[in-house]
Amino acid sequence: MTATKEVAYEIVMTSDIFDPDNPELGKMPGGGVSGGTRLVALDEDIERLFGGRIRRYFTINGIAVEYMVLAGGDEHKTIDAVLEVSSRLNRIGTHRVSTPPIGIGGGVLQDVVGMAASLYRRGIPYVRVPTTLLGQIDGAVGAKTGVNFEGARNRLGTFAPPPRTLIDRSLIATLPERQLRSGLGEVLKMALIKDARLFELLEQHGPHLVADRLQDSGALPGSPQPGLEVIRRAISGMAEELQKNLWETDLQRIVDFGHTFSPLVEMRALPELQHGEAVAMGCVYSAVLAANRGLLDTGQRDRIIDVTRRLGLACSHPGFADADLMKQALADTVQHRNGHQHLTLPTAVGETVFVDDITGTELEIASSYMADLLAWTTNADPATEAASAPPAGGLR
Amino acid sequence: MTATKEVAYEIVMTSDIFDPDNPELGKMPGGGVSGGTRLVALDEDIERLFGGRIRRYFTINGIAVEYMVLAGGDEHKTIDAVLEVSSRLNRIGTHRVSTPPIGIGGGVLQDVVGMAASLYRRGIPYVRVPTTLLGQIDGAVGAKTGVNFEGARNRLGTFAPPPRTLIDRSLIATLPERQLRSGLGEVLKMALIKDARLFELLEQHGPHLVADRLQDSGALPGSPQPGLEVIRRAISGMAEELQKNLWETDLQRIVDFGHTFSPLVEMRALPELQHGEAVAMGCVYSAVLAANRGLLDTGQRDRIIDVTRRLGLACSHPGFADADLMKQALADTVQHRNGHQHLTLPTAVGETVFVDDITGTELEIASSYMADLLAWTTNADPATEAASAPPAGGLR
Repeated sequence: MTATKEVAYEIVMTSDIFDPDNPELGKMPGGGVSGGTRLVALDEDIERLFGGRIRRYFTINGIAVEYMVLAGGDEHKTIDAVLEVSSRLNRIGTHRVSTPPIGIGGGVLQDVVGMAASLYRRGIPYVRVPTTLLGQIDGAVGAKTGVNFEGARNRLGTFAPPPRTLIDRSLIATLPERQLRSGLGEVLKMALIKDARLFELLEQHGPHLVADRLQDSGALPGSPQPGLEVIRRAISGMAEELQKNLWETDLQRIVDFGHTFSPLVEMRALPELQHGEAVAMGCVYSAVLAANRGLLDTGQRDRIIDVTRRLGLACSHPGFADADLMKQALADTVQHRNGHQHLTLPTAVGETVFVDDITGTELEIASSYMADLLAWTTNADPATEAASAPPAGGLR
Repeated sequence: MTATKEVAYEIVMTSDIFDPDNPELGKMPGGGVSGGTRLVALDEDIERLFGGRIRRYFTINGIAVEYMVLAGGDEHKTIDAVLEVSSRLNRIGTHRVSTPPIGIGGGVLQDVVGMAASLYRRGIPYVRVPTTLLGQIDGAVGAKTGVNFEGARNRLGTFAPPPRTLIDRSLIATLPERQLRSGLGEVLKMALIKDARLFELLEQHGPHLVADRLQDSGALPGSPQPGLEVIRRAISGMAEELQKNLWETDLQRIVDFGHTFSPLVEMRALPELQHGEAVAMGCVYSAVLAANRGLLDTGQRDRIIDVTRRLGLACSHPGFADADLMKQALADTVQHRNGHQHLTLPTAVGETVFVDDITGTELEIASSYMADLLAWTTNADPATEAASAPPAGGLR
């Protein structure tokens, strides 16, 4: 027997989202009016920055809500947090359809609130308002929720696309620069796997995009808006990849590029490393593996390393220099991809191949290069390093 | 944007399922061979009755498995139990596709193992071997998993149809008679909503079906097998209803008949009442409501009461005689059905209507009848009660 489920979801780009005259935030997914009290979950950053404006929005618009503030940070991405949200949904009498909760915050909040909504009454609709670059260009477009469990990243979770996602680019302007850079790690990934134009934008405007937080604040009317173009390209690239594979029935996913080796480093280094930071290193590691195999020009490898650094992201980390850890990370990933490596490697900027036969020796050589890269970036004189080249690498 | 998910699932009827020569239990969903160790979860009853045979089965067939024994009983249907199973899946290195766990046991085990499988790595396939009548004719055909939460039945859960379900009718022969009768409560529900022939089978053979545990043990070749016919009709009726609405996108579900008022009584009375026992009372309560409204002949109401008793099931309970509790149960259900009663009432055996305007007064009158029914069944002399009629009821 077969049964078919169709899910509909919308991603709406808006601005001034907390302006009481902007109806988007209060709208019900699919239209209609709310049938009772809705939960509005905020993370601590959003509460601090926008708590007052958000309360004013719902008060002025006469929408019955209750607020819940959640701690951010990957260490709070736990099943306990999911149960706390579930409990609150239960206590305010959340209905099955007509009182969808609203989650406003970063990736951890979206994962936790999304998972709670997907379990409560076996799944209720919810509205997602991602406030970090990573959330807006990556999580927002996907269907995944999840929590860390027993030291494994996202080991428990669901596929639960919210029917409505709202994106306001101005929200990312208020967040710490480090979060923004971390988000650019995922943008870099998207550029490398399928969008050479996006890579060029990062290459040309990297430091400016970071400093300006993708707001195009100095842009004259009619002039190029690299920030907007970067966000739009990253979202549409991700949406394209995900729509055809929302439930990951196909385990060969190019969007997993950079995510093969990074999860274990990230979990070990918590809370030191942010997700996008680890992903960027994972991209570099993949480029190194590809170059060592002769799949990628070393010149292109060095270009990838250079753009990573132009985005203010570190290229290496002791975790990637640890070949044993890399072997374990690959073994873990193989389990998650059902016994296959399905490893995406770059052959050029914007082009990739899948390989399934990476050897332990190749991981050792790549890790050794990552150690050299770490030493080079740590010791290089900032004034002259631009002139020097990354380590030569290759077989030794 | 929309995305479509198609799920395929099979329900296989087999016999002698633990015979090492029967390949069904070891087969992978969709074919292929296992890529590692599979978890086999058993509940305590199954461990006691079949633990040795099950171990022998996998040993002889050379299938790598690890065993986990879970406590049965609704009080163990908790998120903690789900996390214990998840932890075990994690520790044995369960893959995403190629090492699907196998759950052998009653409804609680299936709910817990199913929910763990649906969360682990955001959902892995699993194999369901229901061992109770309720599990075989109800849970087995559905996609629901769930745990009780904060006193609310199945408040957290998922829709996760296992790709493979195995049904061996002989398993129910070994279980306590009370579990069998409880399962017949769900069969009664199915008969009332859509299958007059099934109702007649229960009416004609009720006590025999219970005593014989649906095994048709005395049947001669070619003679009627009421036990087999009852199971087949109950499964196919349920499968038909569920297939068109596996994710309950349509909240008007006739299979919810008998489940509007019973959940709260059941939760309050735990562990006194079994699920099917509460459902049978819910069916009677709905028949009483329908008769009081003039939708159902009182003669048909009495026939339903009579068949309920012939299955060895109680018709009433102090919870149903408590009008305030019934009002709260209806209010809870209305929340779960998104603000609508969507109450299924019988108009004849096998036929129903939906109503959305049941009043508090109607609940009071029906509860008063349930109190009379309770007194009548408690005080009636077993030798003569068959000759006496249930209370007249109606408006007073």
